[in-house]
Amino acid sequence: MTQGLGTGAAQTHGVGQPYDVGQLGEFGMIEDMVGCFEMRGPVLLGPGDDAAVIAVSTGSVVASVDSMIERRHFRTDWSIASDIGHKAAARSLADIAAMGGRTTALLVALGVPAGTPTAWVRDLARGLDDEAALVGAAIVGGDTTAADVITIGVTALGECPAGVAPVTRAGARVGDVVALAGATGLADAGLRALTRGFRSPRAAVDAHRRPRPPYEAGPAAALAGATAMIDTSDGLLADLGHICERSQVGIDIDSERVPVPDAVVQVASAMHLDPLMSVLTGGDDHALVATFPREVLLPPGFRRIGDVVEGSAVTVDGRPWAGTAGHEHFR
Amino acid sequence: MTQGLGTGAAQTHGVGQPYDVGQLGEFGMIEDMVGCFEMRGPVLLGPGDDAAVIAVSTGSVVASVDSMIERRHFRTDWSIASDIGHKAAARSLADIAAMGGRTTALLVALGVPAGTPTAWVRDLARGLDDEAALVGAAIVGGDTTAADVITIGVTALGECPAGVAPVTRAGARVGDVVALAGATGLADAGLRALTRGFRSPRAAVDAHRRPRPPYEAGPAAALAGATAMIDTSDGLLADLGHICERSQVGIDIDSERVPVPDAVVQVASAMHLDPLMSVLTGGDDHALVATFPREVLLPPGFRRIGDVVEGSAVTVDGRPWAGTAGHEHFR
Repeated sequence: MTQGLGTGAAQTHGVGQPYDVGQLGEFGMIEDMVGCFEMRGPVLLGPGDDAAVIAVSTGSVVASVDSMIERRHFRTDWSIASDIGHKAAARSLADIAAMGGRTTALLVALGVPAGTPTAWVRDLARGLDDEAALVGAAIVGGDTTAADVITIGVTALGECPAGVAPVTRAGARVGDVVALAGATGLADAGLRALTRGFRSPRAAVDAHRRPRPPYEAGPAAALAGATAMIDTSDGLLADLGHICERSQVGIDIDSERVPVPDAVVQVASAMHLDPLMSVLTGGDDHALVATFPREVLLPPGFRRIGDVVEGSAVTVDGRPWAGTAGHEHFR
Repeated sequence: MTQGLGTGAAQTHGVGQPYDVGQLGEFGMIEDMVGCFEMRGPVLLGPGDDAAVIAVSTGSVVASVDSMIERRHFRTDWSIASDIGHKAAARSLADIAAMGGRTTALLVALGVPAGTPTAWVRDLARGLDDEAALVGAAIVGGDTTAADVITIGVTALGECPAGVAPVTRAGARVGDVVALAGATGLADAGLRALTRGFRSPRAAVDAHRRPRPPYEAGPAAALAGATAMIDTSDGLLADLGHICERSQVGIDIDSERVPVPDAVVQVASAMHLDPLMSVLTGGDDHALVATFPREVLLPPGFRRIGDVVEGSAVTVDGRPWAGTAGHEHFR
C-alpha cells in the first residue's frame, strides 16, 4: 500500500467484476484493500505514498514484526480470510502489548498467488482492520507482491504510556510473583482438534483461528510496575524460559493455579492427553505473562501462577517439566 | 529476532558446525544473525525482546515495508547472499529517503527453507547490516520462520530533518521542474543481461544485484523545498505517473536530459533495443525523482530532466511514450 494507487489497472478482463487478483492487478488490489482500512489514532499520512507518517508523542516508538505463511501458520480450509487477518494482526499487536505498549499503526506486507479471489483479499483486509481497531490502531501502509503461497507480514508500531519504560524480558527478580492474563492451551487444543478432522470444541478451534490477546493488560502491567513480561507465542513454559534466561532467574509454576479452560480438558480427554500439556506448552494463544514485585496489587485480568526463584530454568511444582517445551521452527 | 535467543538450540547434530538452518534451529539462526548486526543510531532496545524501542526526536516516525521473494525478485544463482541483503534493505531505505527522511532502524522478517546453509543466512544478515550502515541505521529486530522459498520483508523506520515536513507524491505544481538523482535503466539492463546468460556489463549486472539509491539526496531535497518526490521502483515513467495522479498535474520529460548510462547503451545495443526503454521504464534502480519550484537551486546530485505541466499524465518530449509503462505484479 505504500505504492501509488490506481493507475487504471482496475478494469476487468471480460464481463463483470474481476474475480481474482490476477485479473484485478496489483494496483487494483491495493486500492481494494485500502478501501477496507479506516484511519484512526495518530496517523499523519496513511496508505498511498512511499511511506506512512505516524505521530509519536512519548519520544520513542516500540516496533515489532511477525509473519504468517500459508500451510505453516494457517490453512485456508480451516480458517476464513477474516480470521486469518485477525490472527496476523493479533500476533504483532500482542508483541507491543507485551512491552507494556499500545499499537498505533500497522504495516502489512502481503504476498498472494494470482489466483486468490479478490473477495478473499478484501475479507483478509477487513479482519486485519477489525483487529487493529480493538486497540485503536490503523493500517497505514504496506506492500503487495505475487507469491506461491499466501504470506502475511505485519509490522506493529506503538508507544508505552507516557513516563513508563517498556517492560522487557530482563527485569524479573527473585521474590517477584509470576502472573498470567488470558488463557493458554486453547489454540493448541484447537489445532489438535482441527488436525484430527473435528470442528469443535468451538472455544478451542476459535482460539486457534483467532486468538484474543488481553491487549489492555499490557499497558496496565507496565503502569503497575511489572518487572518483566512476554506474550505466550512459543508456549507458557518456553516463553517463561526466555524471561529466565534474560533475567538470570528461575521460575516455579504452581500447576494448580494455572487456568485450564474447559475446551482444553475436552480435547485432552478425547485424545487421552494430559490437559496440562496444552496449557503449559501449547503456543499461539498470545496471553500475557508478567512478573511483579510481591507487594504490587495485580492489575485486572492477571492471576498469580507462580514465583520467581533462584535458578536458571522453569520448574512446575518444583520439578522440571517432563514433556515437550514449546515450539521452534525448522525442527 | 524479536523472539528470545538461545534456548540451547545451537548444538550441532553430529560433528562440527551446523551446516544448514534445519540443523541450527530457529533460535540458533536468530543468534547467528543478531551477531551480524551492529547497534547504531537512536536504538533504545535492540533485538532479543518482544519488540524493539527506537528514540524519535522529531515527534513523528516515517515507516515503510517492502518484501522480496526468491525467484520473483532475486535468484540465488544470480546474486550472492550479501547482495540480496543489500538489495532488500536498499528498497526500504529508498522509500524513507523518497519522503525526505533518514532511516534510523530496520526490522527484518525472514522466511527460509530448512536446507538453507547457515553461512548463506549470515552473509545475508551482513549485507542487510552493511546497507543499513550507509545511512547510520541499525537492524533492531525481526522475525524468522521456515518457508518454501526465501522471503525477506524489511520494515524501515525513520525521521525527516527537524522542522521539515515529509515530501509526498501529492505536492507537485504546474511550473515546477522535475529533477532526478541517481541513474535509471541500469537494473533493468542488468536483468536483461542475466536473463540471457551474460554476467556483464558489470555496471548493469551489479545494479540489478545491489542498487545504489542516492540516500542523501532525499533529505537534501526535502530541505531544499521539494514539492513531491518518489523513488524509481516501478520505472521512471510509471513512478512519475504516480506523482501526476496524486498531484493532479502532467509531467513532460525531455529525453535528451535523462542520463543514459554506458552499460545501458551496451546492453540495448547487443539486444537491438532502444536504450531509452530501460532508462524510462526499467524498475528497481531506486533513484530519486522530485519536483522543485523553478526558483530553487537543485541540491547536489539532482539534475533537471523535465517540467511539471498542465495535464494528468507523463509525456516524453511532448508526446505519450509508446512503449510499456512499468512493472506491475500479477500481470
